[in-house]
Amino acid sequence: MARLQSVWLQELTWEDIADYLQRDDIIICPVGSTEQHGPAGPLGVDSYAAIALAEDAAKESDVLVTPPMWFGDSPHHLDFPGTVSLRTETLVAVVKDIIHSLHRNGFRKIIFINGHKGTNNAALITACRSVHQYEVQDVLLALVDPMYIGRGIASIKEAVEHHAGELEISHVWHKFPHLIRQQKLPPEHVDLEPIFSSFVQKDLFGGGGDTIEIFWNSKEQKEFTPNGSFSDSTNASPEKGKLYHEYMVDNLVKFIGWLREYKGPIGK
Amino acid sequence: MARLQSVWLQELTWEDIADYLQRDDIIICPVGSTEQHGPAGPLGVDSYAAIALAEDAAKESDVLVTPPMWFGDSPHHLDFPGTVSLRTETLVAVVKDIIHSLHRNGFRKIIFINGHKGTNNAALITACRSVHQYEVQDVLLALVDPMYIGRGIASIKEAVEHHAGELEISHVWHKFPHLIRQQKLPPEHVDLEPIFSSFVQKDLFGGGGDTIEIFWNSKEQKEFTPNGSFSDSTNASPEKGKLYHEYMVDNLVKFIGWLREYKGPIGK
Amino acid sequence: MARLQSVWLQELTWEDIADYLQRDDIIICPVGSTEQHGPAGPLGVDSYAAIALAEDAAKESDVLVTPPMWFGDSPHHLDFPGTVSLRTETLVAVVKDIIHSLHRNGFRKIIFINGHKGTNNAALITACRSVHQYEVQDVLLALVDPMYIGRGIASIKEAVEHHAGELEISHVWHKFPHLIRQQKLPPEHVDLEPIFSSFVQKDLFGGGGDTIEIFWNSKEQKEFTPNGSFSDSTNASPEKGKLYHEYMVDNLVKFIGWLREYKGPIGK
Amino acid sequence: MARLQSVWLQELTWEDIADYLQRDDIIICPVGSTEQHGPAGPLGVDSYAAIALAEDAAKESDVLVTPPMWFGDSPHHLDFPGTVSLRTETLVAVVKDIIHSLHRNGFRKIIFINGHKGTNNAALITACRSVHQYEVQDVLLALVDPMYIGRGIASIKEAVEHHAGELEISHVWHKFPHLIRQQKLPPEHVDLEPIFSSFVQKDLFGGGGDTIEIFWNSKEQKEFTPNGSFSDSTNASPEKGKLYHEYMVDNLVKFIGWLREYKGPIGK
Amino acid sequence: MARLQSVWLQELTWEDIADYLQRDDIIICPVGSTEQHGPAGPLGVDSYAAIALAEDAAKESDVLVTPPMWFGDSPHHLDFPGTVSLRTETLVAVVKDIIHSLHRNGFRKIIFINGHKGTNNAALITACRSVHQYEVQDVLLALVDPMYIGRGIASIKEAVEHHAGELEISHVWHKFPHLIRQQKLPPEHVDLEPIFSSFVQKDLFGGGGDTIEIFWNSKEQKEFTPNGSFSDSTNASPEKGKLYHEYMVDNLVKFIGWLREYKGPIGK
Amino acid sequence: MARLQSVWLQELTWEDIADYLQRDDIIICPVGSTEQHGPAGPLGVDSYAAIALAEDAAKESDVLVTPPMWFGDSPHHLDFPGTVSLRTETLVAVVKDIIHSLHRNGFRKIIFINGHKGTNNAALITACRSVHQYEVQDVLLALVDPMYIGRGIASIKEAVEHHAGELEISHVWHKFPHLIRQQKLPPEHVDLEPIFSSFVQKDLFGGGGDTIEIFWNSKEQKEFTPNGSFSDSTNASPEKGKLYHEYMVDNLVKFIGWLREYKGPIGK
Repeated sequence: MARLQSVWLQELTWEDIADYLQRDDIIICPVGSTEQHGPAGPLGVDSYAAIALAEDAAKESDVLVTPPMWFGDSPHHLDFPGTVSLRTETLVAVVKDIIHSLHRNGFRKIIFINGHKGTNNAALITACRSVHQYEVQDVLLALVDPMYIGRGIASIKEAVEHHAGELEISHVWHKFPHLIRQQKLPPEHVDLEPIFSSFVQKDLFGGGGDTIEIFWNSKEQKEFTPNGSFSDSTNASPEKGKLYHEYMVDNLVKFIGWLREYKGPIGK
Repeated sequence: MARLQSVWLQELTWEDIADYLQRDDIIICPVGSTEQHGPAGPLGVDSYAAIALAEDAAKESDVLVTPPMWFGDSPHHLDFPGTVSLRTETLVAVVKDIIHSLHRNGFRKIIFINGHKGTNNAALITACRSVHQYEVQDVLLALVDPMYIGRGIASIKEAVEHHAGELEISHVWHKFPHLIRQQKLPPEHVDLEPIFSSFVQKDLFGGGGDTIEIFWNSKEQKEFTPNGSFSDSTNASPEKGKLYHEYMVDNLVKFIGWLREYKGPIGK
Repeated sequence: MARLQSVWLQELTWEDIADYLQRDDIIICPVGSTEQHGPAGPLGVDSYAAIALAEDAAKESDVLVTPPMWFGDSPHHLDFPGTVSLRTETLVAVVKDIIHSLHRNGFRKIIFINGHKGTNNAALITACRSVHQYEVQDVLLALVDPMYIGRGIASIKEAVEHHAGELEISHVWHKFPHLIRQQKLPPEHVDLEPIFSSFVQKDLFGGGGDTIEIFWNSKEQKEFTPNGSFSDSTNASPEKGKLYHEYMVDNLVKFIGWLREYKGPIGK
Repeated sequence: MARLQSVWLQELTWEDIADYLQRDDIIICPVGSTEQHGPAGPLGVDSYAAIALAEDAAKESDVLVTPPMWFGDSPHHLDFPGTVSLRTETLVAVVKDIIHSLHRNGFRKIIFINGHKGTNNAALITACRSVHQYEVQDVLLALVDPMYIGRGIASIKEAVEHHAGELEISHVWHKFPHLIRQQKLPPEHVDLEPIFSSFVQKDLFGGGGDTIEIFWNSKEQKEFTPNGSFSDSTNASPEKGKLYHEYMVDNLVKFIGWLREYKGPIGK
Repeated sequence: MARLQSVWLQELTWEDIADYLQRDDIIICPVGSTEQHGPAGPLGVDSYAAIALAEDAAKESDVLVTPPMWFGDSPHHLDFPGTVSLRTETLVAVVKDIIHSLHRNGFRKIIFINGHKGTNNAALITACRSVHQYEVQDVLLALVDPMYIGRGIASIKEAVEHHAGELEISHVWHKFPHLIRQQKLPPEHVDLEPIFSSFVQKDLFGGGGDTIEIFWNSKEQKEFTPNGSFSDSTNASPEKGKLYHEYMVDNLVKFIGWLREYKGPIGK
Repeated sequence: MARLQSVWLQELTWEDIADYLQRDDIIICPVGSTEQHGPAGPLGVDSYAAIALAEDAAKESDVLVTPPMWFGDSPHHLDFPGTVSLRTETLVAVVKDIIHSLHRNGFRKIIFINGHKGTNNAALITACRSVHQYEVQDVLLALVDPMYIGRGIASIKEAVEHHAGELEISHVWHKFPHLIRQQKLPPEHVDLEPIFSSFVQKDLFGGGGDTIEIFWNSKEQKEFTPNGSFSDSTNASPEKGKLYHEYMVDNLVKFIGWLREYKGPIGK
């Protein structure tokens, strides 16, 4: 069978999709954000991460990708210009509508890739859980996040990773090199313990002890990170980005392979 | 003053935006759709139209563009696979959140370009009118739609224009030639009068007489347009697309010029 | 078969409606507004327009009319006392509930007459499109608006028509003569171009070139139309109102005739 | 000072309202329903009751009345054709929007007259309580209902009063005599105890013992009241209607007199 | 058959509930509030009332009770610290979700006991009526409130009863004696007529004449009841509380007995 | 200064709270669930966990606790009777209302304890983040969850911990011993890898590798865990529960100590 002419839904006609649905029912939906990523990272970092993962995993697996959702849940970045944040409720509604549309099309396995580590997940989890319980049973919904599928490779980084950290900057640098302002990579590391207690999460990729979450808003964030970055990213590099990216694409391709064999519903 | 390195917000850093806001407060937001456009047009036609208009007008005027909103209000296309439709309420919420974020950033003149002729407007009008009346007064919101700023050039087309018509296919053909399936341009024209009475709108670009709107759903549409196109687009061409595109970009550039001089609030 | 004792639903008993539904399934729902119409027009102008059209077309066609919805979407008039505006979302909810109730009753063809030219349409379109796609398929919903079914007669007017213009004042004058303050008909015409750019809509009944919509709020409107009227209505007259009214009633009667013959669903 | 030319807002111009607000800040808002009232009562009974009370009390007190809200909360009547019911949430939204508009106009004392005994009150109470607590403090909101201000005269009736009972039929008979089908006044009385236990409310005007509310839907109601009336209304008469009406108008006029003297906020 | 090991759902396992549902389908849901009750009553008075009634009636009838809902609709008490109030819309949503869950479990008769006299009822009525009409037909929903099932015993009190009155204080005193501050029982009685007109409700347990409801907010309440109590409760006693409690439990037990025999749906 | 007579808000009067607020502004809010916990655990396991942690930490720290929220977000348990689940949106609304009420009272540091490991967090995070960004800035909101503050002690368990696992059963056993059915502790361990791929989370307390979340609904859960428990809890014991409980209380007490010294806003 011929491979897809493009993995991107928006570049194909409805007849192409009808053909695809004859042989497969998997689709990937990249969800990012438009939010400040410090002086060196473009506002689209999270979206570019989701787009790159979706596109490369899809190409390798010959599955479809929806157009990206460029806007995510970024309230605490709103005091940095250029940030465009949806309320959580809005993102929930968008994701529900996407699921309903794709389900009506005939897709039965939908993979959301959240490029916006963690922060979109309240919305994504709310939407997926609710739709699957109350509205559409015969669909498998999965949520992929670099914070969780990149753990195994995180040891390549040298600095603590928080917002705009070494790995996510490296990731975009690898795939979209012209978008990183190399001369502006910030060496500062924000020490979060005095701000959020010793129960703060030590690193986005885990490894910490007991944690308690304290919520902060955009004014507060502007206070403790005047340049918008939480992390020292001077050790970022396109090489690290490549390792990080390919590791995650590999995971995704493995998962898609498993999913292709999966016969639902879950539990049967 | 230096021009923007890119007109796309997502490619810039927050510091770039802060600089821009020192000298200007205009931003364009392209809103499209992901919906079937017949056998020859890609699912992204409306989004590509909005993106192309936004990008070219922005480059010429040196103003910013937000990332595109790829999903619009397309319920009546849902029986054609690949269509991803938001409910009107969802799109209202997205647009409101975008306005609030941009306003908080410091933007004071926001131009929405709706590539999805007419159909997104219920949501865009609801959001803009409501935000401007009840929530944020010191912002000017404008809505641009090819259906209304392309009227003056519409006479170049030969066929009646409805969904997936000669001009919108030509538009994408001009800007994204690899996305049009030339060999599949449909010659059929759906005669709408027997379906919707003699009060049906004769052509999207106007010129008709008295009209009454009848609402149809996706099952009904699938009945009366089995291939998804309402219009004969065999006369579409990249040349027509160029004329159409440049005419609208010109209008936009003129409007942005006027807007730049505008001192609000409206009425003062 | 006996004609209806009254066309107004509220004046009949449920048994009368049950009888009517044995022979017909059409109903008209007039939606107006309660908003200022300058120094000469009563606050109910739009509602009276919808009521008059509904009642006279219904009498001629022997179909039913629901009680009127007196409140519409009028945010930009709120700085003139007496204006009572619903939020768009509220009007959407009202219209959806009306459709659901009438559908449950057994009505299958519902005609909304919007007396409030254009401005209620975001809500009416949202409600009708959404209900018909997602909730109730076996109903035909139509939307009638003087702005669109009165075009063919609009040439009888002498002035540019915008809010509180010559034709809508004439309309009420013809049907409810005691409600027009003839001595207060305003001669002023608000020149909208300096306020809204050359892309402003020239006249509510069409005829203009390329347009871009700019949204204004009630404070802004109070600035540019201190007396509430946008238009010179000194040429209004009950005679013009009669021509205008009868032309539109004729259109409505023709449409109802067509509708009576219509066998749905659309597309079949 | 001259009295109002009309008590109905919709018949006046915004300048008339501006004048009124120079001397008074009271307005009445009649809220009814469009629901079946048995074989003898028109679908508008509750709306006519609210309209009549509002108009006559307003004329006597020289205060304003908004246009009526013809649609109320009537789910359990939906199996009788002609009933048009709003969901409670919709009616809450309508009432909130009316309060906000009137408050913005300058009204500070708003009296809702609910013609739909009891059943609209969940919505009216929700809206009034919520707006007054969270949104607009400097307004006095009052709720009038025949079920509560007609108690003192209820002894003139001979039958137990429930839906479509002797007094509400008499009320409409007195004010709108052509709308009552005298030959169809139902003699049946539905014995509610076997259906709703001995804790059922014995009569809408009180006098009962301990009660427990059981909720019923429209299908159930159609079962236990096939003709739509709960009550024997054969003793209804325009004379009783007159006594009932005038008693309640008197109460309203007294209350408006008290309200005029009232200096808020409450508690000061 | 063995009686329940506990009447409280939360103390049992799902297998216990499955067993119970083999033999019965009744469950009680106590809804209270967390709001100030003057200097002598704990913030949980209304919740304790609902809990006590639910538990004792359930034990006597061998039926289940859900965990209590401690938070109710108490906006006008918010200026007294310790009050935690839900918006009416929130409580509606909670109650709807509870009904849906219990219905899915297999319960078919659900009794809400509202310990918060009257004030929660807008939410409870909205939720029950709406769910039963539009969402779940095969369930019987009942609403019990001390204000309505305690009328027959109310004559044992000596003072006028309003918020934090003699009977509700006595009720908690009987069941939870350590929670009443006996030395702080307030002797003041707030005279409501000068504040709310002569149409004010004279006593929560009825007996008044014609009434008109005026809505007040928390700031206003703090003005007219500085200590939070509306009523003289110096005559409260555990003995009265016992009489009051047992009277209501008796009513509940009778009602549950009737309910057990009831074969729905209502009207059949 | 005297310690609190009770840490439970509902047992105190508003005057007690006013006194407390003179010296402190911290309050704990326990949020649980009512959901099946296998054959040995009561439906209230999560609520009891939150209650026990809140009460003991509060007693040790002399801070207040609100009444518990017994209902949480448990959709995937709905096919086991006794489960009462709120939709995520409902729980968001409840939590927002609680925050607003407590903030209005004068509390400035609110600690939510989620006894329902992880699953309530979409709602809790949505509510806290949204309120703190958009509605109430001068409040510190913290979220505590056994899944995150119990990590350091989790090594005392012998089995893999998922729903109804060894540690959460031990926890309730220690504090509420009569509620555990010891003879019914299930020895089964559900192997999740075949069901959810090798990217499944290995243990609720962490330690796993790369993960991808797949959403399942209640029907699917009933398939793969017919008795409701995911985990072997035969090694549960009150001794382990004591260690686990005291470890977490210690963490909480430390955190409250830090919080007491904290001078906001965050970042200053």
